[in-house]
Amino acid sequence: MSLELSALRARWKAHVWALQDAIVEALRAVDPGLHVLEDIWTRQDHVGAPGGGGRTRVLSGDVFESGGVNVSEVYGALDPAFAAQLGGGADDALWAAGISLILHPRNPRVPTVHANFRFLSVGDRHHFGGGADLTPYYPHREDFAAFHAHWRDAIAPLGTWPAWKAWCDRYFANHHRGGEMRGVGGFFFDHWRREELSEDLEAVRRLSEAFVGAYLPIVLRRKDEAYTAEDESFMLWRHGRYVEFNLLHDRGTIFGLRTNGRTDSILVSLPARATFAYRPTFAEGSPQAAMMALYWPHAWADECR
Amino acid sequence: MSLELSALRARWKAHVWALQDAIVEALRAVDPGLHVLEDIWTRQDHVGAPGGGGRTRVLSGDVFESGGVNVSEVYGALDPAFAAQLGGGADDALWAAGISLILHPRNPRVPTVHANFRFLSVGDRHHFGGGADLTPYYPHREDFAAFHAHWRDAIAPLGTWPAWKAWCDRYFANHHRGGEMRGVGGFFFDHWRREELSEDLEAVRRLSEAFVGAYLPIVLRRKDEAYTAEDESFMLWRHGRYVEFNLLHDRGTIFGLRTNGRTDSILVSLPARATFAYRPTFAEGSPQAAMMALYWPHAWADECR
Repeated sequence: MSLELSALRARWKAHVWALQDAIVEALRAVDPGLHVLEDIWTRQDHVGAPGGGGRTRVLSGDVFESGGVNVSEVYGALDPAFAAQLGGGADDALWAAGISLILHPRNPRVPTVHANFRFLSVGDRHHFGGGADLTPYYPHREDFAAFHAHWRDAIAPLGTWPAWKAWCDRYFANHHRGGEMRGVGGFFFDHWRREELSEDLEAVRRLSEAFVGAYLPIVLRRKDEAYTAEDESFMLWRHGRYVEFNLLHDRGTIFGLRTNGRTDSILVSLPARATFAYRPTFAEGSPQAAMMALYWPHAWADECR
Repeated sequence: MSLELSALRARWKAHVWALQDAIVEALRAVDPGLHVLEDIWTRQDHVGAPGGGGRTRVLSGDVFESGGVNVSEVYGALDPAFAAQLGGGADDALWAAGISLILHPRNPRVPTVHANFRFLSVGDRHHFGGGADLTPYYPHREDFAAFHAHWRDAIAPLGTWPAWKAWCDRYFANHHRGGEMRGVGGFFFDHWRREELSEDLEAVRRLSEAFVGAYLPIVLRRKDEAYTAEDESFMLWRHGRYVEFNLLHDRGTIFGLRTNGRTDSILVSLPARATFAYRPTFAEGSPQAAMMALYWPHAWADECR
């Protein structure tokens, strides 16, 4: 491995570890009773050699019912069948480091959020991936518009926002439910690579640092809003759809479970409570019926101001 | 298609449709307030041709919080990539009919149960599959022993019980959780075929009719048993593990969703309520700690009498 690559990896790892601290501190500022359970773990690769590890932080508080902000650095030999799926050969080594977070608020007027930023190598091919997406339970359209406009502006210098916004709409969809999205989208990118790896790293670092400003204003605006029993039961049922997406479709979850990842850290993405129901219906004109119409691709950023 | 094959398929279909009636009536006898929502549906195959359909019955009552007893007959062209996975060619037609049921009781002292019996053809290869497995939440060992002994005796004439019991232990396991089972097993078989298709059909018909006697005695014995808040929260958390198995590992679920099956009918297997928690612990000596030690392969039938 070149000295330059080694230095870039170290720089990225230091960044995501520090960002984990910064994000957890920002969350604690809006949720002073936040309980943080920290687990530091190591892993072995599929042949039993040392394979990195991570720092899992599991959150539970008054504003956030459950959540996790995790960082990890994994490396080593790849299971050959899985290497082929990733587009690599049997001898290709894997290296990946990133931050992944998910937050499920108690108040159904506050949306769930997910974000993830990663630097990944398979053999000598290096790239970045990541994204952030919002899963609301109440039709506060101005929140969705603000979230999308924030990312539109953050990604603007890269020229990729329209493609990444559309990619997110396609990716976070329950294909077994006719393509209904798990939320209202955001942005998603994978296999991103330009000329200079160090410049790409800086760009993705800046994006990852934009997360707090995309989400916390929404939390602050909604966390004390009164809500109804219907709002809550709708949230719990949409949690069920969230579980369906994560376990049936999410490549990050499947990648983690297939690369001998740490199951408990990966599945901290699942909400504390979920319900499942056969074809529920929602009263015409209700906030729930209105919200159901919004789990589809939409030009949200255009609604901002 | 030969007349004989056509007659066997008709006989099997008539059987599973009648068995659905019989099982729902038996459940209503123990749960008089049982609400049954019936949906009769048709499907198209992946090229849009008629592809069969089914009769879904979604249950909710006082004893059973949620459940479904479904029958379906599906046929038509197979998605080529999926045909290859089933061991068939791109031109092979699929035909499958069967009954599938799952019952999630309200009282955590009553186990969840799942059973499934199917007759399936890919091209000119015909076989049977199915099974039944128990997912308890309280360490009533005598119930587990009775369930296993019932199936041991029912399967004895076929000589396959030890293999099918062991297959179930392997199959209904959360591999991403170190192989912990979703319950305490039962039996599972697939690709079963001897010499005479009509004799195989009769054998599987008899097994399917043994379901009521395997499960309802346990329900009757436990449905009015008092339980604690700890029992219930443990059940809800194990429901979460049930969801993980069904969405990550269950081939029946994945087969259904991949063959343009009816999503709502397939996912009626998910419990009404589930919780997810990061590494919960259970007090030493508690029923929950005792139950946790039992989600592993065990010679339950040997404990009967």
